Amino acid sequence: MRPPFTPRLFTLETEHGKIDGPQFMPVGTRATVKALTPRDLKEAGATMILGNTYHLYLRPGHKLVEKLGGLHRFMNWDGPILTDSGGFQVFSLSQIRKVREDGVEFQSHLDGSKHFFTPELSMEIQASLGADVVMAFDECPAYTGDKNAVAESMHRTLRWARRCRDYKLKSHQKLFGIVQGGMFPDLRQECAEKLATMGFDGYAIGGLSIGEPVKLMHEMARTTAPFLPKDKPRYLMGVGRPEDLIVGVAAGIDLFDCVMPTRNARNGQLFTSEGRVNIKNLKYAEDHRPLDVNCDCYACKNFSRAYLRHLFIAGEILGSVLNTIHNIHFYLSLMRKLRAAIVENRFDVLAPSLYNFSDQVNPEQ
Amino acid sequence: MRPPFTPRLFTLETEHGKIDGPQFMPVGTRATVKALTPRDLKEAGATMILGNTYHLYLRPGHKLVEKLGGLHRFMNWDGPILTDSGGFQVFSLSQIRKVREDGVEFQSHLDGSKHFFTPELSMEIQASLGADVVMAFDECPAYTGDKNAVAESMHRTLRWARRCRDYKLKSHQKLFGIVQGGMFPDLRQECAEKLATMGFDGYAIGGLSIGEPVKLMHEMARTTAPFLPKDKPRYLMGVGRPEDLIVGVAAGIDLFDCVMPTRNARNGQLFTSEGRVNIKNLKYAEDHRPLDVNCDCYACKNFSRAYLRHLFIAGEILGSVLNTIHNIHFYLSLMRKLRAAIVENRFDVLAPSLYNFSDQVNPEQ
Repeated sequence: MRPPFTPRLFTLETEHGKIDGPQFMPVGTRATVKALTPRDLKEAGATMILGNTYHLYLRPGHKLVEKLGGLHRFMNWDGPILTDSGGFQVFSLSQIRKVREDGVEFQSHLDGSKHFFTPELSMEIQASLGADVVMAFDECPAYTGDKNAVAESMHRTLRWARRCRDYKLKSHQKLFGIVQGGMFPDLRQECAEKLATMGFDGYAIGGLSIGEPVKLMHEMARTTAPFLPKDKPRYLMGVGRPEDLIVGVAAGIDLFDCVMPTRNARNGQLFTSEGRVNIKNLKYAEDHRPLDVNCDCYACKNFSRAYLRHLFIAGEILGSVLNTIHNIHFYLSLMRKLRAAIVENRFDVLAPSLYNFSDQVNPEQ
Repeated sequence: MRPPFTPRLFTLETEHGKIDGPQFMPVGTRATVKALTPRDLKEAGATMILGNTYHLYLRPGHKLVEKLGGLHRFMNWDGPILTDSGGFQVFSLSQIRKVREDGVEFQSHLDGSKHFFTPELSMEIQASLGADVVMAFDECPAYTGDKNAVAESMHRTLRWARRCRDYKLKSHQKLFGIVQGGMFPDLRQECAEKLATMGFDGYAIGGLSIGEPVKLMHEMARTTAPFLPKDKPRYLMGVGRPEDLIVGVAAGIDLFDCVMPTRNARNGQLFTSEGRVNIKNLKYAEDHRPLDVNCDCYACKNFSRAYLRHLFIAGEILGSVLNTIHNIHFYLSLMRKLRAAIVENRFDVLAPSLYNFSDQVNPEQ
């Protein structure tokens, strides 16, 4: 991180409650934040969670979810929900995809069946799901130095963004535009300014954390954030590690999401106030201490590292549950501390100490 | 079922609390009742849970568990725990086994390593684990009509039972003897009477639910129960389906255990007041109703069948969690109703209506 820091507090109001930013949104891809009950999420302090349009469209289907009362009721989450547009998943998960001006043709990663996403279909799906915040359908180009290709893609994202903006969502739904432009600051600026002219309820930075060096990702987040309207929420999509969240907050970002805390939990990779812990490591076999002495989550208050290791080695479901409870708690607790630091005007001093960067493997890779 | 019914209430006191029988004990094979937190178990009304000596001996090892404060502390269960002797697992799980007079040689199902269980080692392991109730090390013969073989095995079980009884356990531990004797009432009677002469803190019926027809299993439980001392707890091991529990209670059994509610839950086989539900069935895809309208578990109070089906089809961990919460709740709730029926002296009338037997596949098979 480098000064000047421009962290900020930002409150987003939705029909299902308000989100105090900066905030992290746990990812509930298939209408469940993996391994957690809604109660676990509430206890961890989650406010807004994320659902994935691509996954829910394929299974169980957005029409079914709508019939059953919408995504909130389906998964019994009475807090705010944000759905992504499906754009990123189409580009990263589907077997084959073909981008045309009107939309993207792709094959399902589940069964190879063919589908065609347009900006309007993405809006229709997200309207059916009924999320509080809906994302514009964008094209997420691969990490590349080919500026012309990125520019072309960015302009298509802008044309799609307008079509999304013109779609009539449900009355409670807010629509966020997504800034693309790859690693080119001038393209990012152009995209941000044109989106702002169209007018959205919030603005996201997309197309980062897709394979570029971490340093460059930080640089692009820092560069792009100031281009986004100050009076609207700012969302850095798909980011990231605890240290990335701190960098993002320092840059004035309000919202984050990432599968890292949940996915890493299931792989036994745990975040603690003293750095990362790989719970399967033999050195924890007889370790009677809690995973993180500074954590008050259900896992840390009730179980030892030795027990968590045993569950992981034995492949027990409870291991995934407890690890996920902890990692999500860690992330949300970090965000609470960052917000408190901003309130108390000591973010500059406190932020670097909130996470132990020392044991990171290639922190800048 | 057939009269006369001889159901009874029985209270077992342990250092970690009392168990009101008739009661069902959820199975926590590897120091976790699969997919449940201790909190989930408490909410379902669990009192005593079961741990498996064979599994915990192999992984993480009883010495390690003892070092970490015993099984209660290791898995953070402050209620009573019963551990089995390892006898049944050695006979059913291990790759190769050889029974000698002094014990059983077997190979681990995990890595093929060789081990030798004796009655004394089983006691030593169970002492290390620190369970409140400890089971004598027995030989569980396969289902057979060979009476001589069963008699020989039963007499070995008696000799081993005496060695277990002579072992000095921890002061708080109670030791139960196990009645064997296959499907031969006279052998069962002989075994029960000889065990009673040795003197144990409780008596179990072992060697049932090992492949014999359900009708025969019921018959043997009914026949054997009266041979057990009236002033001690009676435990029918490894049984069973809800209807089997009702039959067992009617026969005067106090304690039951079975992996069925937890294992079936993970396979999407759910028990409800209206019979069994296979949640992956297409007919539940749009079913907005709770799994069981008569159930007040967390799963039934908060989610629809359609959602449970979605989680199961998608292979989500939360599906296993919610299904297990429900099935364990169903079993423990059934036992509460059976106890209430005994208290109110209307077991004969109520018991048959407590579970819908109508949709059972081959109920007498």
